[in-house]
Amino acid sequence: MTSSPFASRHVGPSEAEQAKMLAECGYGSLDALVEAAVPSAIRDSRELDLPVAASEEEAIAELRALAGRNRPMTQMIGLGYSDTVTPAVIRRNVLENPAWYTAYTPYQPEISQGRLEALLNFQTMVADLTGLATANASLLDESTAVAEAVLLMRRASKSKSATVVLDAETLPQTVAVVRTRAEAVGIEVDVRDLAEGLPEEFFGVVVQYPGASGVLREQEFYEGISTAAKAAGALYTVAADLLALTLVAAPGEFGADVAAGSTQRFGVPLGYGGPHAGYLSVRSGLERSLPGRLVGVSVDADGAPAYRLALQTREQHIRREKATSNICTAQVLPAVLAAMYAVYHGPAGLRRIAERVHGLAAGLAAALRDGGVEVVHGAFFDTVLTHVPGRAERVVADARRLGVNLGLAGADHVRIACDEVTTTDALRRVLLAFELEAHAEPGEAVLPAGLVRRSEYLTHDVFSAHHSETAMLRYLRSLADLDYALDRGMIPLGSCTMKLNATTEMEPITWPEFGGIHPFAPAEDAAGYRELVTQLSDWLAEVTGYHTVSLQPNAGSQGEFAGLLAIRAYHHANGQPERDVCLIPSSAHGTNAASAVLAGMRVVVVACTDDGDVDLDDLKAKVDKHAGTLSAIMITYPSTHGVYEHGIGEIARLVHEAGGQVYVDGANLNALLGLAKPGEFGGDVSHLNLHKTFCIPHGGGGPGVGPVAVREHLAPFLPNHPLDAGAGPDTGVGPISGAPFGSASILPISWAYVRMMGGPGLTTATKVAVLAANYVAARLAPHYPVLYTGQSGLVAHECILDLRGLTKETGVTVDDVAKRLIDYGFHAPTMSFPVAGTLMVEPTESEDLGEIDRFCDAMIAIRREIDAVAAGRWPVEDSPLRGAPHTAETLVGDWDRPYDRELAVYPAGVRRRGKYWPPVRRIDGARGDRNLVCSCPPPSSFEG
Amino acid sequence: MTSSPFASRHVGPSEAEQAKMLAECGYGSLDALVEAAVPSAIRDSRELDLPVAASEEEAIAELRALAGRNRPMTQMIGLGYSDTVTPAVIRRNVLENPAWYTAYTPYQPEISQGRLEALLNFQTMVADLTGLATANASLLDESTAVAEAVLLMRRASKSKSATVVLDAETLPQTVAVVRTRAEAVGIEVDVRDLAEGLPEEFFGVVVQYPGASGVLREQEFYEGISTAAKAAGALYTVAADLLALTLVAAPGEFGADVAAGSTQRFGVPLGYGGPHAGYLSVRSGLERSLPGRLVGVSVDADGAPAYRLALQTREQHIRREKATSNICTAQVLPAVLAAMYAVYHGPAGLRRIAERVHGLAAGLAAALRDGGVEVVHGAFFDTVLTHVPGRAERVVADARRLGVNLGLAGADHVRIACDEVTTTDALRRVLLAFELEAHAEPGEAVLPAGLVRRSEYLTHDVFSAHHSETAMLRYLRSLADLDYALDRGMIPLGSCTMKLNATTEMEPITWPEFGGIHPFAPAEDAAGYRELVTQLSDWLAEVTGYHTVSLQPNAGSQGEFAGLLAIRAYHHANGQPERDVCLIPSSAHGTNAASAVLAGMRVVVVACTDDGDVDLDDLKAKVDKHAGTLSAIMITYPSTHGVYEHGIGEIARLVHEAGGQVYVDGANLNALLGLAKPGEFGGDVSHLNLHKTFCIPHGGGGPGVGPVAVREHLAPFLPNHPLDAGAGPDTGVGPISGAPFGSASILPISWAYVRMMGGPGLTTATKVAVLAANYVAARLAPHYPVLYTGQSGLVAHECILDLRGLTKETGVTVDDVAKRLIDYGFHAPTMSFPVAGTLMVEPTESEDLGEIDRFCDAMIAIRREIDAVAAGRWPVEDSPLRGAPHTAETLVGDWDRPYDRELAVYPAGVRRRGKYWPPVRRIDGARGDRNLVCSCPPPSSFEG
Repeated sequence: MTSSPFASRHVGPSEAEQAKMLAECGYGSLDALVEAAVPSAIRDSRELDLPVAASEEEAIAELRALAGRNRPMTQMIGLGYSDTVTPAVIRRNVLENPAWYTAYTPYQPEISQGRLEALLNFQTMVADLTGLATANASLLDESTAVAEAVLLMRRASKSKSATVVLDAETLPQTVAVVRTRAEAVGIEVDVRDLAEGLPEEFFGVVVQYPGASGVLREQEFYEGISTAAKAAGALYTVAADLLALTLVAAPGEFGADVAAGSTQRFGVPLGYGGPHAGYLSVRSGLERSLPGRLVGVSVDADGAPAYRLALQTREQHIRREKATSNICTAQVLPAVLAAMYAVYHGPAGLRRIAERVHGLAAGLAAALRDGGVEVVHGAFFDTVLTHVPGRAERVVADARRLGVNLGLAGADHVRIACDEVTTTDALRRVLLAFELEAHAEPGEAVLPAGLVRRSEYLTHDVFSAHHSETAMLRYLRSLADLDYALDRGMIPLGSCTMKLNATTEMEPITWPEFGGIHPFAPAEDAAGYRELVTQLSDWLAEVTGYHTVSLQPNAGSQGEFAGLLAIRAYHHANGQPERDVCLIPSSAHGTNAASAVLAGMRVVVVACTDDGDVDLDDLKAKVDKHAGTLSAIMITYPSTHGVYEHGIGEIARLVHEAGGQVYVDGANLNALLGLAKPGEFGGDVSHLNLHKTFCIPHGGGGPGVGPVAVREHLAPFLPNHPLDAGAGPDTGVGPISGAPFGSASILPISWAYVRMMGGPGLTTATKVAVLAANYVAARLAPHYPVLYTGQSGLVAHECILDLRGLTKETGVTVDDVAKRLIDYGFHAPTMSFPVAGTLMVEPTESEDLGEIDRFCDAMIAIRREIDAVAAGRWPVEDSPLRGAPHTAETLVGDWDRPYDRELAVYPAGVRRRGKYWPPVRRIDGARGDRNLVCSCPPPSSFEG
Repeated sequence: MTSSPFASRHVGPSEAEQAKMLAECGYGSLDALVEAAVPSAIRDSRELDLPVAASEEEAIAELRALAGRNRPMTQMIGLGYSDTVTPAVIRRNVLENPAWYTAYTPYQPEISQGRLEALLNFQTMVADLTGLATANASLLDESTAVAEAVLLMRRASKSKSATVVLDAETLPQTVAVVRTRAEAVGIEVDVRDLAEGLPEEFFGVVVQYPGASGVLREQEFYEGISTAAKAAGALYTVAADLLALTLVAAPGEFGADVAAGSTQRFGVPLGYGGPHAGYLSVRSGLERSLPGRLVGVSVDADGAPAYRLALQTREQHIRREKATSNICTAQVLPAVLAAMYAVYHGPAGLRRIAERVHGLAAGLAAALRDGGVEVVHGAFFDTVLTHVPGRAERVVADARRLGVNLGLAGADHVRIACDEVTTTDALRRVLLAFELEAHAEPGEAVLPAGLVRRSEYLTHDVFSAHHSETAMLRYLRSLADLDYALDRGMIPLGSCTMKLNATTEMEPITWPEFGGIHPFAPAEDAAGYRELVTQLSDWLAEVTGYHTVSLQPNAGSQGEFAGLLAIRAYHHANGQPERDVCLIPSSAHGTNAASAVLAGMRVVVVACTDDGDVDLDDLKAKVDKHAGTLSAIMITYPSTHGVYEHGIGEIARLVHEAGGQVYVDGANLNALLGLAKPGEFGGDVSHLNLHKTFCIPHGGGGPGVGPVAVREHLAPFLPNHPLDAGAGPDTGVGPISGAPFGSASILPISWAYVRMMGGPGLTTATKVAVLAANYVAARLAPHYPVLYTGQSGLVAHECILDLRGLTKETGVTVDDVAKRLIDYGFHAPTMSFPVAGTLMVEPTESEDLGEIDRFCDAMIAIRREIDAVAAGRWPVEDSPLRGAPHTAETLVGDWDRPYDRELAVYPAGVRRRGKYWPPVRRIDGARGDRNLVCSCPPPSSFEG
């Protein structure tokens, strides 16, 4: 049944275990269960048309062959992507360590202190270097970070203007991404040479620092923009290179309100464009406008300092249609890499690297000038712009023959960007391409005098305590040990599909042949990548039933946005720009509404019935009401209630008849693969989450990949890219991400998953995922009501446990149960989504019966504890539920609780050897939100 | 000062920290300290003649180039080495995980329960598959395991014969290794075709099963040997292939007393010959004769089951000259890999693999016969022997052109060995080499009917509970989490040099270009390896001042043995075979004496003076007494007392004048590199420990590499190898290891270390190691007497803390202090070596000042606790010292100790977040030795 050797490793329950689980559910076979659960109207029993499953070794061999077709060159193209050295100790112990990469987003802060500290280091690093008060814990890439900055400026600006001004030196992909975003929400983009002044009215201005051509202007220039922006009631964003900021003045020092950019060059491989962590920081007063995740410091129940996500209520799943950003996934793992790079090098080390890079660039410029080549800018950090009238293409071609990719900037200019790996030998080859037989020596600094950085940065102890490899290794381990990830046990998060991230899937992403490719390198350098992209796109189209897939969106939210833009562009192309209403069921994930708003749509909410399905009557009414302006409906299938709704066909028909498009959110695709295809049962467009269904690990909250899949009529409106004609249709909506193929370097993960599972394997996985959820529902239903089920009484791949009655009766909340599960050795299920007061459980196909039973046993034992509260044995506020989680430290002090120490930390069934000990007790989130502290607290605050 | 970018990462203390440490020691500079510590007579201040240090990235690039010169082929040579698939989840989470590879030998069992469980799995696996009662926790390789079996048989046999009989089907490298060993101790080796009967008298017989040519004989044959051996009072060893044993009868089922062999094919890469774990198992009654490490089950202070090394008192460091084996290092890491391979596949999975391999071999044989090729044996497991008169070389050459290495067996025979990675396409190419255009299908089994295995194996739960990747991942993590390794904190073991094992050093060992080379592949396939071997040998010769280095010995004990054999052969070649006395100071490591005995020498102990140095008067007397028969002196430098003895020149002179050779044990080379060269200050031969000084990680107790380095006159007597003319001199003593270059696949570690440190870096490391030891001595001397120092009052790279007075006064023992250190978050120093009642501390250069101070603070705090015992605050038996280590579990029960919980588990200065919790309390070793249990106990015994 599990038809490939790998599938039998990926799927947790053995066939014998499956039989037991089926018996508990009352079905004789997997097929019988699936027949009962999945509406026959949408069921597609054809086998998926995919290659026969490869073994792990075969898949690796094929990936090695693909990797071998990539050609890592000396990359001196620049434009925001610089080659860098990932310190081996960080690569191995973070990027190749399941303790880091299988972790979930730190919504349960008590079991996430390690990665929260790493992210706080990231925030401190960005805030310090940019000279601004508060940085968030990463955005998707530089271009989208600047786009977010533009939206932030619009919200925060006093100007009524709809115009944002972009420096002509802004990275071209950033300009394009901003344009894509701006067009949908009515922002005018004015790209101009800022030396020629600013318009009269504008709400914001963005300056690239240094400029895309490498230029560094005088201090007065940067200060002058600040003055002008203030005068116009506008805000000022600087898109800054973090490495340059170790040598030149921080944006906050010359009046910037916002800084945005990339942390890629802090040790994160080029990877053909991503994933890398973008950053965004703001001056004091704007911190509550900052989109994305923000880590803050609060205290736990003992008053000990503890980290958690700050201002979590701002997040889009709460704000829905009032959202101002659809950012959901961050780039946690790349952000951790960048932060650890700063920790390992420290301020002096970073400065040394920057000085070396700058010296090489200065030396190159001098050697070029000596050889008679015109160098355009007198001041720059790492990038030298040459003026070679009519010769640019030839120089670039000659450099390629010598193994170097330079930046072609029109017919007359060549751009040469130095970086951490640049050698004098590389400079020698560059000079040869200019027909100069010369040797470039590191040169004197050429920074504008007023711009030389004088302020300190990275002064916190963490940036000076871990500079030996031994110290760094232990720091990384000590943080990982604070956290609970998939390598410890089950993470039964509804809607998040925390399944196995197999080692074989993960291994290729750190191969140098995937790491060393610049996103704007010629296509022939990336032949292996492009083949992989084509194959994976084709496979995803096959399994979803769509015509075309774009892998560019680098998060689910971005895929969603791209899908809605495609719908919007389609209506416009049909001469129906008035179609701007987007219907969204009340059960939807908040990102849906946020993305719709950002795509320029008006959100209209459709009610749900008591049994959780879309209320067809209300839908009909809304469709009728908005018939002429109906753009789309966004629906999740199976629903966020974890049910295969039978009405899906009817819903699609109604919307289509009214001229609308059907957007099927692919968040729950793990319940569909091999059983039904959204592109065939009514969807016009879907986004997928490769980090859910297709095994890209959550990485503690990113990276993700959110491909968008469309039917043929929408294919002309997929994303494209101004710097890569092969990245999408000419008629496309523009780029959604900074890089043509988004987070290309992690696509091998999903490629390997599909390649090793094959069609039958994927189908089995889906069936077992459905079995596992129904088994949990069957075991727990006697103890907690299961909120919604389908017509057959079955759930799909997740189930909602309704605690509202128990809470009312006893005061025990979902929080109490979630935190108590930590004492039992588990990550909590999803809390209060999509229904407040409930827990949503998704076991996935990868958990074996032993682990699932251990979880069910824990939930039942907790139910007994709730009963004890109900029976008056413990007051709720003094119960082990409210006291949870219990740290080891609580055991050593006086003990005046009405339950004993053993019950606190070793409740029934908990493994004693190797028990997971949470490092803090329950964290007070509200207090932290009132007193925002978003950079590293002094070590003394942790002393016991 | 730390003159390469890597050196500044490898060396822990920054220059500012070094200055503080120097001040504490009362010296103004590193050089001043070193001048004072190292006798000027041996000090060599020339810079080491090594290549300029490479950066980590440069070293990796060079290693990639070397790897690129290796040619992994389809390897069908056989002879005990089979290609295999390392499951990716095991590779990443064991072999690439510092939690596993940086661990020390589990002499402190309370902090080693994870790897002890893994080794118990190994023992259970071997015992089950061989059908014998007790297996040890690995030996160095198959050939040395058989050699150990021969020595065991001699000890245990009732026969007075000096003859051991080896099956003519024994692997040729095994025959050669046994001969090397036998010659020195007067054992006669009779290699014969056992079908022609056994001699009248012999003490043991070894049968290869299946034979080297692949043959499987009838059940009666194997049983008949058992009968004959019993009749002769001899013992019976079967050298068995573990994978074959899943299909054919176990040696224990047909009367074998002993089984020996390799576990390489259980997931451990070929790696050009090693490291792989050899195994040895014995029938009931022989377990106390088993050499090497044995893991057993005992109980802790709470009566809970706990693992520890059994019969530890047998180990050579206690037995010294009465030792019967010099085995010290085991192959823990490869043994863990093999055990986890069995855990992951389980009995059914292993059988499936074996059936597939056997089916392919049978199918190949059938296709060959169909094509008119004579197949010699009717019954075999995985290896087909063909008879191709006069054509063998041509067939082998043709196969090479098709990418396949076959086994050339003389002019007329070709051997073809199938394995886990064999494909039908490989068989097609093999057939082509025989000029057959045919397709081989898996064939029917051709096992002798009486030999088909009927007994069960691997029935313990652990072999069926972890078959999904998720479950396996968690099992590996849960075991690692029980243990304390270098990735958690300092392991200050005197004489064991637990320094940084840098990631960049470790990365290459899992590259397929190093993994996929068969040890007997043609030299041209291993061009990269051979270049690396040459370079590393040259560098080691340079840093030690010797003429020639052999990298073949795969453990320190083996290098030592090889060095002594070279001395022995030298005397024999000079016509002085009567020189057989080996002088050994009383302070020596026990392995010295054991190796001397195995090299056929008589050990004469030389006294030490009260201040720990060799007693020169006693030495003179012993030299005089044995002048005519003096073979050598073995001396460790700096001494095992951690002191640079000033008498070294005089000692060497005296021995040389008497015609003896000087063996300088390189165990303490970390105190010499760049400061003095043993080959120039008196040594004729040394062995080095690449797993101490040269950064090969200890791996929980192996693999190690023990090169032997000699002056020119001894070079003709280094090890060589019958199957590889390039592995040593024609005049050599024969092979010491099964593979020509021993544990070749881990040599890149030491290569990278030397390459990245360069001469100045190595010298700085030595100086800082000496500084660190003197700093610890200076800080701790007020609290614990430092036992020995040199003339300047300084120690070398380690120091001995004398607890004997405190023990006498208070009853607090070194054990108490060692176990109490666990509560403080440290691994204990070396206990009671070289002086009973003391602790020997070696901080190494890789620990930064923060960690060293944390350790010193802990030792001082413990001294305060001892004072409290002395003052009567606690009776010693109820003190936190005797109660240590304290588990988390002890906190939850009643507490009737005279100290509180907080003091027990969070004594002053202990980090609370991320504290290491020992999983068991103090273990009762003696009880376990009385009741030997050496296979996995039922899981129920661990229930809380």
